[in-house]
Amino acid sequence: MSMNSFGHLFRVTTWGESHGPALGATVDGCPPNVPVDAAMLQHWLDKRKPGQNKYTTQRQEPDAVEILSGVFEGKTTGTPVQLMIRNQDQRSKDYGEIARSFRPGHADYTYFTKYGNRDYRGGGRSSARETAARVAAGGLARAAIDALLDGVTIKGYMVQMGDRKIDRSRFDPAEIERNPFWVPDAQAAAEWAGYLDGLRKDHNSVGAIIEVVASGVPAGLGAPVYAKLDTDIAAAMMSINAVKAVEIGAGMGAAMLTGVENADEMRMGPDGVEFGSNHAGGILGGISTGQDIICRFAVKPTSSILTPRKSITKEGREIELITKGRHDPCVGIRAVPVGEAMMACVILDHLLLHRGQIGSNQGIIDV
Amino acid sequence: MSMNSFGHLFRVTTWGESHGPALGATVDGCPPNVPVDAAMLQHWLDKRKPGQNKYTTQRQEPDAVEILSGVFEGKTTGTPVQLMIRNQDQRSKDYGEIARSFRPGHADYTYFTKYGNRDYRGGGRSSARETAARVAAGGLARAAIDALLDGVTIKGYMVQMGDRKIDRSRFDPAEIERNPFWVPDAQAAAEWAGYLDGLRKDHNSVGAIIEVVASGVPAGLGAPVYAKLDTDIAAAMMSINAVKAVEIGAGMGAAMLTGVENADEMRMGPDGVEFGSNHAGGILGGISTGQDIICRFAVKPTSSILTPRKSITKEGREIELITKGRHDPCVGIRAVPVGEAMMACVILDHLLLHRGQIGSNQGIIDV
Amino acid sequence: MSMNSFGHLFRVTTWGESHGPALGATVDGCPPNVPVDAAMLQHWLDKRKPGQNKYTTQRQEPDAVEILSGVFEGKTTGTPVQLMIRNQDQRSKDYGEIARSFRPGHADYTYFTKYGNRDYRGGGRSSARETAARVAAGGLARAAIDALLDGVTIKGYMVQMGDRKIDRSRFDPAEIERNPFWVPDAQAAAEWAGYLDGLRKDHNSVGAIIEVVASGVPAGLGAPVYAKLDTDIAAAMMSINAVKAVEIGAGMGAAMLTGVENADEMRMGPDGVEFGSNHAGGILGGISTGQDIICRFAVKPTSSILTPRKSITKEGREIELITKGRHDPCVGIRAVPVGEAMMACVILDHLLLHRGQIGSNQGIIDV
Amino acid sequence: MSMNSFGHLFRVTTWGESHGPALGATVDGCPPNVPVDAAMLQHWLDKRKPGQNKYTTQRQEPDAVEILSGVFEGKTTGTPVQLMIRNQDQRSKDYGEIARSFRPGHADYTYFTKYGNRDYRGGGRSSARETAARVAAGGLARAAIDALLDGVTIKGYMVQMGDRKIDRSRFDPAEIERNPFWVPDAQAAAEWAGYLDGLRKDHNSVGAIIEVVASGVPAGLGAPVYAKLDTDIAAAMMSINAVKAVEIGAGMGAAMLTGVENADEMRMGPDGVEFGSNHAGGILGGISTGQDIICRFAVKPTSSILTPRKSITKEGREIELITKGRHDPCVGIRAVPVGEAMMACVILDHLLLHRGQIGSNQGIIDV
Repeated sequence: MSMNSFGHLFRVTTWGESHGPALGATVDGCPPNVPVDAAMLQHWLDKRKPGQNKYTTQRQEPDAVEILSGVFEGKTTGTPVQLMIRNQDQRSKDYGEIARSFRPGHADYTYFTKYGNRDYRGGGRSSARETAARVAAGGLARAAIDALLDGVTIKGYMVQMGDRKIDRSRFDPAEIERNPFWVPDAQAAAEWAGYLDGLRKDHNSVGAIIEVVASGVPAGLGAPVYAKLDTDIAAAMMSINAVKAVEIGAGMGAAMLTGVENADEMRMGPDGVEFGSNHAGGILGGISTGQDIICRFAVKPTSSILTPRKSITKEGREIELITKGRHDPCVGIRAVPVGEAMMACVILDHLLLHRGQIGSNQGIIDV
Repeated sequence: MSMNSFGHLFRVTTWGESHGPALGATVDGCPPNVPVDAAMLQHWLDKRKPGQNKYTTQRQEPDAVEILSGVFEGKTTGTPVQLMIRNQDQRSKDYGEIARSFRPGHADYTYFTKYGNRDYRGGGRSSARETAARVAAGGLARAAIDALLDGVTIKGYMVQMGDRKIDRSRFDPAEIERNPFWVPDAQAAAEWAGYLDGLRKDHNSVGAIIEVVASGVPAGLGAPVYAKLDTDIAAAMMSINAVKAVEIGAGMGAAMLTGVENADEMRMGPDGVEFGSNHAGGILGGISTGQDIICRFAVKPTSSILTPRKSITKEGREIELITKGRHDPCVGIRAVPVGEAMMACVILDHLLLHRGQIGSNQGIIDV
Repeated sequence: MSMNSFGHLFRVTTWGESHGPALGATVDGCPPNVPVDAAMLQHWLDKRKPGQNKYTTQRQEPDAVEILSGVFEGKTTGTPVQLMIRNQDQRSKDYGEIARSFRPGHADYTYFTKYGNRDYRGGGRSSARETAARVAAGGLARAAIDALLDGVTIKGYMVQMGDRKIDRSRFDPAEIERNPFWVPDAQAAAEWAGYLDGLRKDHNSVGAIIEVVASGVPAGLGAPVYAKLDTDIAAAMMSINAVKAVEIGAGMGAAMLTGVENADEMRMGPDGVEFGSNHAGGILGGISTGQDIICRFAVKPTSSILTPRKSITKEGREIELITKGRHDPCVGIRAVPVGEAMMACVILDHLLLHRGQIGSNQGIIDV
Repeated sequence: MSMNSFGHLFRVTTWGESHGPALGATVDGCPPNVPVDAAMLQHWLDKRKPGQNKYTTQRQEPDAVEILSGVFEGKTTGTPVQLMIRNQDQRSKDYGEIARSFRPGHADYTYFTKYGNRDYRGGGRSSARETAARVAAGGLARAAIDALLDGVTIKGYMVQMGDRKIDRSRFDPAEIERNPFWVPDAQAAAEWAGYLDGLRKDHNSVGAIIEVVASGVPAGLGAPVYAKLDTDIAAAMMSINAVKAVEIGAGMGAAMLTGVENADEMRMGPDGVEFGSNHAGGILGGISTGQDIICRFAVKPTSSILTPRKSITKEGREIELITKGRHDPCVGIRAVPVGEAMMACVILDHLLLHRGQIGSNQGIIDV
């Protein structure tokens, strides 16, 4: 119910603003005895961290996470884990104009309208910095999943930037970590570099599509109606700043399919049920099938750009607004580790929910 | 937290199976003194009701809603409203084979795996009948919105069936109620009739895209991070059976936009802020802007089809499965009133949440 | 969050008014494959049912429960269980005066103030009839506990009526079912009969104290801070109409104890840890110890009495009010099965929560 | 749902252990524009702070609260408020023996059993230090109540320590702040000093009863069944460490009353409804009446005492345990500001819930 919380049993509450002293995640409901330390979480935070190349904001933040509670002698205790990240490189003076006017396409106007009092420095809570806390919590979720199950992997990557799409025939997982875009297609990575350079020099920004795949998730996670696994994935991804759409499996393309095409046919393989295809994205009736769980989400272009856009001030004066400061030309890039983190949180949460209500799967194919 | 509940303050819990004695919605948190009676809710249920034309299942159900509690002397009392719909036309014998085998693309396999015990008759809880309860609850939400605000309208319609899309230059709201597809384009309606007839005769089915627009929603509804208005809309729509994707505003297309294009520029009009475009779909930073709230979702094709598909039985035997029974060739059609109902529930819920935390908007453009 | 729901994973939402067509409980989160039928639930409802002797209201209600969903072929499916009880013996004309005035000590005034629109017939939702739904849900909880664990028993009984207390040296569990007061002391039962007869003839009513004991509950259920097992028991009991206090173990008397007295000393017995006493009432730090869980709660006297009391009308006119109608001279009697039901719901809920977060107890005394 | 959270709309999650680097409260849902700074919260923390006199633990902690988020330019922003208190005076070596054995009457055994991994230093999360975070959150709740309403006061005090009770004929509110026991009776304060000195020298401890009164709370707050105002107060108080019982109004004594006595008669006064008595403790049917809200709770004696008690080690060895370290001879003393804080959180939460569902009271006495 809490407006800044996510999850049912593994429950993450993020707090903090872009230019306050710190931000973080209060994580409740983590199973006990999960081996974890700050370095394990830092691994994931370092992927999201700004300032690593010219394609992300130049703000220099170590994004060093501190574990303030809930971990004792290298293991979780089952009590709340507080993950805090101090802000270091605030340049609040960059934000003078935003205090008095509203960036088109940004949350400035709606925050002001609703709350009146708004921490305009760096967007306050609407800043992409909020997602650092999610990545820390996602790191903890990954550690807990590993403690409970073998062989679950969660991997995100970009599949589209602007109108440039990857060529899936060139899909190479090893490539993802080698380029600044988290793209599994070396040729695309090379081309996109020039494309984004051009946009950046042109004082512009661009959107992107991220795909996140969870493999090795057992069948049976989820619930039929409102706590469907896909419902919670959709909510998880749509809750990330700048996300405007979420797809599971065939996604929007499911509208184009006929029933004959869409049926993921089933056969018995040596290790149990096998599917001939995965239009379902690993989820049927809100419950995992055991196939890869596949989700995509679209990130809109950064609204803070150097090109003047028509806007208004708090006094209703019409202006042309240029947003100075340090911003991501394609904020979708840094959304990759965030999407992975949210997927990890959802998977762990449903593992715990499933164990709570069901114990272990009740239906076995009785060959 | 409840797995079959939706909403924070206006909280809907649906219950019931396709072939049990009844199904319904337990609605908690409705404001008191909302004028409502069964006929007002029936109006919306009649739109979703099966058997009205050859494009929907031939099951004959009056879907008559009874109000069992929470309404006294024609007004809500503020206590739980129980909305019950009795099932009438169950032909459970049609479902013998499904008891022992799994329809590809359907929840049969995952329900069986998770729960062991599965009400296979008509899909039990995974049946589209579950959505009748949502429509009843949505009718109550509409009545409550009308009691609290003037001028909010919520309208859904189909924009795509299979590979056929509407021509937005022919968009005519009046046309929506005139054709069996809820399509705002008379020419499309005519063409789609033949297209769907062909698919039906071919023992096939097809997917669709629904658009739902809420107009007149005031600025300020929603919250920044996990209870974002768009997060809750995404969850609401993805929770509907067979939905595989949800878009807000520009949706997946936001990936194609540049920041210059995406900025919905602002100007002062005679009645306050005006926007030059609405790529945001009426939501910025999770909070409504006062523009139309625009959402689209994709519905996959019905998986119960008469064309044989490869599957397995509970004993792991490989079979070719044909699904007899009465099914929708395009279940997306009946999803239109369901999408409207979910939008109504989300809007009302956020009206109440906003009033609870904020009272009324705190920031005023001070011209 | 829902205002008429109780429980985290095993979640009960009650609905319905005293004089509406029906009332019931929507139960979400029940484990699948729990053997249950209406007769099993009716067993518990029959204990709470009115009109069974002269010490309870003479309203004649069969309180027959119908299972409308979530049970298939004699077992729960894991989806919502709707338990409905139709009202039969409404005499709404008895309530004319209450429609216009407020019974002192009753919810009439506060309901009217808050909601404006109030179902005054029989107290609407503030009627003790609401507790029938709890007893039905509690019956389901008992069935689920039995399916998950061996040897848990939950037993309630009266220990005080007015100023008459039981003599614990005469405590006889077998006596509880033999008298109309659920008193484990035959001599007290005989004496209380005359005492209550006198009060009834005197147009008066009286309060009571109920004790509920859960035996066989394993150690480890509960959580440290806000989802403490005792917190949830306190909330469960205080949520019952007319309850004004809740005690765990030594209860209010804990204030009188010294630390030396209060320490429940521990020793190793043949089957593990043994305690020398149970001032803790089976709960330490919010988590069960494995000892009996002991709770007591006080029920105030029925406020609907035939003795005139000063009150006011909706128009602010001062009156002397006599409450006609059929009422319990000691509503605490029928609170016994209700207290048991709430205890069952809490125990099951915490069993599921424990299994969800922890799996099974992580610390073993390593002899 | 989160196990370390409290409240529906004003939602407090506490985190942190007695001997970790810090503890705190993550507060979500606070209304915006509430004037608040660290000094305002420190005022309340200073009342609970240890080491102020010989009747509380000698641990020296400044309990200095830092506001890390959610407050901007001296006002709340409506986003999460993180309140952090660093631990300073940890003497972890005092706790060597507790790491291997279980204090009778303490959470040591149950934490170990459930979680396996337990931060034994100072009791970890079961320490009374956890309540510092509640007091900080309660200070914020008070500030928000003051911003929304005039004239609400929340006052706690001790009414019993061991077998010594206050004499209500000597009740003097001004006395509460003048003595180390928060007792509104100067003569009792003097006598109790000697009594507690004796117990302390005798290596013993003792229980207490605290009363908390909220005055000026408007009628209409609360809800009928499970979110009753008294249910939430009971849960709030029972969630405090060492609390074993909660009473509202007449409390356990309600069992002794007849219906004639218990009826709080109503009359019209110059400012509206007046009541002749307040056995209800300001709550009828779960909803506030406008009278004083009166609650009492019992705190058991500190289980960490210097007198040897029989216990066992993790290896099942039987021992005589003496608890060294610094402990409160009557932890009930410091529970006074904690009870006030919890009451403040409940009142604010219900103010917001009421505004959310109802707006403002719907029923007016129409003279």
